[in-house]
Amino acid sequence: MASPGMEDSLTRPSSPAGLSCYLAISQLLGLTVVAMTGAWMGQFRGGIAWESLLQFNVHPLCMVIGMVFLQGDALLVYRVFRNETKRSAKVLHGLLHLFALVIALVGVIAVFDYHRKQGFADMYSLHSWCGITAFSIYFIQWLMGFSFFLFPGASFSLRSKYKPQHIFFGICLLVLSIATCLLGITELLLFNIKATYSSFVPEGILANLLGLLLVAFGLVIGYILTRDEWKRPPLAEELALSMDFKTLTNGESPSSSQ
Amino acid sequence: MASPGMEDSLTRPSSPAGLSCYLAISQLLGLTVVAMTGAWMGQFRGGIAWESLLQFNVHPLCMVIGMVFLQGDALLVYRVFRNETKRSAKVLHGLLHLFALVIALVGVIAVFDYHRKQGFADMYSLHSWCGITAFSIYFIQWLMGFSFFLFPGASFSLRSKYKPQHIFFGICLLVLSIATCLLGITELLLFNIKATYSSFVPEGILANLLGLLLVAFGLVIGYILTRDEWKRPPLAEELALSMDFKTLTNGESPSSSQ
Repeated sequence: MASPGMEDSLTRPSSPAGLSCYLAISQLLGLTVVAMTGAWMGQFRGGIAWESLLQFNVHPLCMVIGMVFLQGDALLVYRVFRNETKRSAKVLHGLLHLFALVIALVGVIAVFDYHRKQGFADMYSLHSWCGITAFSIYFIQWLMGFSFFLFPGASFSLRSKYKPQHIFFGICLLVLSIATCLLGITELLLFNIKATYSSFVPEGILANLLGLLLVAFGLVIGYILTRDEWKRPPLAEELALSMDFKTLTNGESPSSSQ
Repeated sequence: MASPGMEDSLTRPSSPAGLSCYLAISQLLGLTVVAMTGAWMGQFRGGIAWESLLQFNVHPLCMVIGMVFLQGDALLVYRVFRNETKRSAKVLHGLLHLFALVIALVGVIAVFDYHRKQGFADMYSLHSWCGITAFSIYFIQWLMGFSFFLFPGASFSLRSKYKPQHIFFGICLLVLSIATCLLGITELLLFNIKATYSSFVPEGILANLLGLLLVAFGLVIGYILTRDEWKRPPLAEELALSMDFKTLTNGESPSSSQ
């Protein structure tokens, strides 16, 4: 039963046609949301700086770069680098998530520091509750991913049990991060342009469009990740290896799954 | 290759143990978010009525019942009624979505009517943009689902091509609906209790908790839907039938997929 899969992976083209197209769209959307967040902060919110009132503006930009663009791209690694060894893909996946976490941490520190200096209360809004939940679980998910898949300790059967959970929660975390961004956009607009928002001022329209494009980014990433035929096919040698492991672990003969 | 699947479906217990537990949690969460929305409107927003200023309060309640609770439950039909005929499951799935659409439509009319009477602008906020997008695509998805799967016209091969898209967009629509609810919660709080929200007043905490429970509802539904082993196993007679169709459609001999 393993042979059709193996033949498939050997005869399959280096990257399926549709996949490349969706990957290009995802990157275009990802770069656009980062640029639009920068443009919003630069054109309408006075720019970005660490010292001064502009410190707040570090927060939206870092969160969109870290928790959306980099987190999203980290999920695509196994689809993009489908012909590299699994080990290389894993390391890149882990590194991108680590960059995302560090940049997001800077964004989180920026807003807490800004609140402290201004004497504003922390952690009362739904945005902050969702955001701190997403960030904390994202950090825990990274630690668990590292311990199970990169650290050499975990057994093959433990890895295969955890893998579907890791993938499910990974996609959920991206979705929750994007939802939290939408909440942040709404909060920022209602704190700053509440009186003029309803007359369709440019800042409101820009921020609303940013929200829709964030949704579109998540949608395209989700679509790429859930297409079975775009999953990374195991390399021939990995397949042979994992069959051996399975045989050892389950005590089955390789033909028993027939 | 068909025989292991068929044997599985015959020897499989009527409902997998874990599934029942997650289904119970989903229903508890679903009823809780509906009750909390009602409590929020009743205790803090003056109650619900069609005539008078209370007309606005119809909106959140109808949207949570229709676009979250009923929409979510409609997605679970194939998991809950796993031993009914596919036709019955389809009809119930379509009916629940139809109820959801009608109740959501009442909620949409309520807010537009309230805005008109009060002279407020429509459709300027990110919440309204996301909401109208979700509602419109939900309606289109229902129409397409009806034409492809319930109306007798569509061919077997057309159905199997559209099915993965229908499922993907169905889950995305639930997610977008929940995200839109979170935006609505944030808007409502910032319009009504902006001055006291930061001092952790009961209304703010209730609404934030409602937001987190909406996220939890989506998470549990998503988890149930994406577990392969909880998918509805085809009944023996359906499997035989679909094999025949496949053979006719693809012009393959039943053994060629071996």
